[in-house]
Amino acid sequence: MHRALELARRGTGSVEPNPAVGSIIVDHSLKLIGEGYHQQCGGPHAEIHALNMAGEQSQGKTIYVTLEPCCHQGKTGPCSQALIRAGIKKVVIAMRDPAPHVDGGGIEELKQAGIEVEVGLLESEAQALVRPFVKRVTQGLPWIHAKWAMTLDGKIATRTGHSQWISNPRSRERVHELRGRMDAIMVGQRTATADDPLLTARPPGKRIPARIVIDSQARLSVQSQLVQTVAEAPVIVVAHPSASQKKILQLEQAGVEVLQFSNCTSENESQPNLRLCMQELARRDMTNILVEGGGSLLGSCFDQRLIDEVHVFIAPKIIGGAEAVTPIAGKGLEMIPELHNLQDYQIQQLDSDIYVNGRVEHHT
Amino acid sequence: MHRALELARRGTGSVEPNPAVGSIIVDHSLKLIGEGYHQQCGGPHAEIHALNMAGEQSQGKTIYVTLEPCCHQGKTGPCSQALIRAGIKKVVIAMRDPAPHVDGGGIEELKQAGIEVEVGLLESEAQALVRPFVKRVTQGLPWIHAKWAMTLDGKIATRTGHSQWISNPRSRERVHELRGRMDAIMVGQRTATADDPLLTARPPGKRIPARIVIDSQARLSVQSQLVQTVAEAPVIVVAHPSASQKKILQLEQAGVEVLQFSNCTSENESQPNLRLCMQELARRDMTNILVEGGGSLLGSCFDQRLIDEVHVFIAPKIIGGAEAVTPIAGKGLEMIPELHNLQDYQIQQLDSDIYVNGRVEHHT
Repeated sequence: MHRALELARRGTGSVEPNPAVGSIIVDHSLKLIGEGYHQQCGGPHAEIHALNMAGEQSQGKTIYVTLEPCCHQGKTGPCSQALIRAGIKKVVIAMRDPAPHVDGGGIEELKQAGIEVEVGLLESEAQALVRPFVKRVTQGLPWIHAKWAMTLDGKIATRTGHSQWISNPRSRERVHELRGRMDAIMVGQRTATADDPLLTARPPGKRIPARIVIDSQARLSVQSQLVQTVAEAPVIVVAHPSASQKKILQLEQAGVEVLQFSNCTSENESQPNLRLCMQELARRDMTNILVEGGGSLLGSCFDQRLIDEVHVFIAPKIIGGAEAVTPIAGKGLEMIPELHNLQDYQIQQLDSDIYVNGRVEHHT
Repeated sequence: MHRALELARRGTGSVEPNPAVGSIIVDHSLKLIGEGYHQQCGGPHAEIHALNMAGEQSQGKTIYVTLEPCCHQGKTGPCSQALIRAGIKKVVIAMRDPAPHVDGGGIEELKQAGIEVEVGLLESEAQALVRPFVKRVTQGLPWIHAKWAMTLDGKIATRTGHSQWISNPRSRERVHELRGRMDAIMVGQRTATADDPLLTARPPGKRIPARIVIDSQARLSVQSQLVQTVAEAPVIVVAHPSASQKKILQLEQAGVEVLQFSNCTSENESQPNLRLCMQELARRDMTNILVEGGGSLLGSCFDQRLIDEVHVFIAPKIIGGAEAVTPIAGKGLEMIPELHNLQDYQIQQLDSDIYVNGRVEHHT
């Protein structure tokens, strides 16, 4: 199963919105006779690659697969039937597929065909690999990453708003790698205006992320780098219904898609509802979204418990200043025991910078 | 010399206000025949320990010492004369002693006695070991450490001021170790009032640090834990001359020393002048001062470029909130290229926390 998980990992970044899956087939002496992974949405599933490699030898053998085989006709045929046809004797599955159209159905079909099925081997490792997929199919929300670069005194800009560059070239390289496996990069209107960023992955990664600006009054300039490069990667402006129709029309004519969401919470009533926005992105099969700031947008996301994972770059520098900008604004929490804690995090030194990556556990 | 530096390090924390010094004596085949380090102010210097161990064998041998031997009669006799009397043939010195009463005088005496002298072996390592001493004797200021504990989003407290505990027990243990080698622990008035801290090293370290509150209006309560424990460790209140004489008298009667400094800079005119205060502490032979916050005091210290070294504890937690408290307030810097950079820093994981320790290089 370790080998299957390793194979699955290779698909990450290109396989979405499908889950990353790996599979191996072994004979009675545990000799590997087939292996494969799900490489790309629309392409063959991991099990099919493994079956193809093993060929007629599959008969009577055991297959290991990191996720329950599908039992539905999607872009490709159901894997459960392919395994039955190939005469597989035993199927070892790391985790059940929680997607509503599978959800145990694959296991059921295999069992009814008289195949021995075992579920749960290295389940937590398998879960870790498909968390974004699972969140999307079970909660109807993308997996939302937050990224910020700050100094050792927790500032993302000086009191005059100067912020280029806090992090070092290797940290910025890492950000571009991150972008290259996202479905969308999201920033707030102030960041879009102040930095006039491109928000593309340079060099390009496995996917081309859409660029999304949360921009209640649709203020994004048609002269901005984002709008000027709309042919290279889509730009979506998320506005409030109170935004000027003229501004919206201008953006649309420049090739930008404008989405509008109202908000019923009194505190953010002039802001588009972020949760509705994220639901719409999930509906479009977006699995991973990277929110790059600024502080207000990240603050709203944390206040609404929308962030699943953080990528923090800490530079060994000190800015100081009561009025310097900090990474997460918004309302924030009141008491230390309520804090959002990081889980399964890793700390890495990127030349002079410190990189911290982990999952957010929201206090309930 | 590596061995001598290693020995010198053992004196750190107990030897101040003297510099940490280590020394070894070797014979012609480089066999170690004597070694020692300066253990405590008032006790024998490193060279004397090494000479005592080597005894009559010192005759014609080579001594390695991490700092230029002294040539003055202080609490102990001059080492230069002791080396001459012992018949040492060659003295290898890592660095010249910049203290005005030595400053090459020891080297000169040895040379005049016909002893071969070599200076500069592993000089930068030796310099690193005695930086606080060198700063005090050359600039008349203590070596000033800053410490703060913050979350991954750069907050030291929630928007309601709640801050206990951001860091984990192992980080707090490290803070107590730090305190145990300081001459004084310093906090601002608001921190003293909000946290009512003890500011002692628990368990005790090599020294008992004085506890200093920067408290312009001498507001510290005589009921505070600090004042109540004044018999265990001195408490010094640093006030502005505008503070109430009645308050000062009350504190003095409770055993607190009150220092007063006016301020000529327009921005902080109601605050005691920090630089004058630090100069007074250095005059009292205080070599290491730890400033533990809050944000305003650390901000003033950074604005005045008084901080030499930082100890930062980062907890894998997120608070959020535009109004949450950040570690360094004050005025701060305007542009990224002006930032205070960290030098020779080390990053260590203390269970779940990240500990960053380094020297501050102020942009000039």
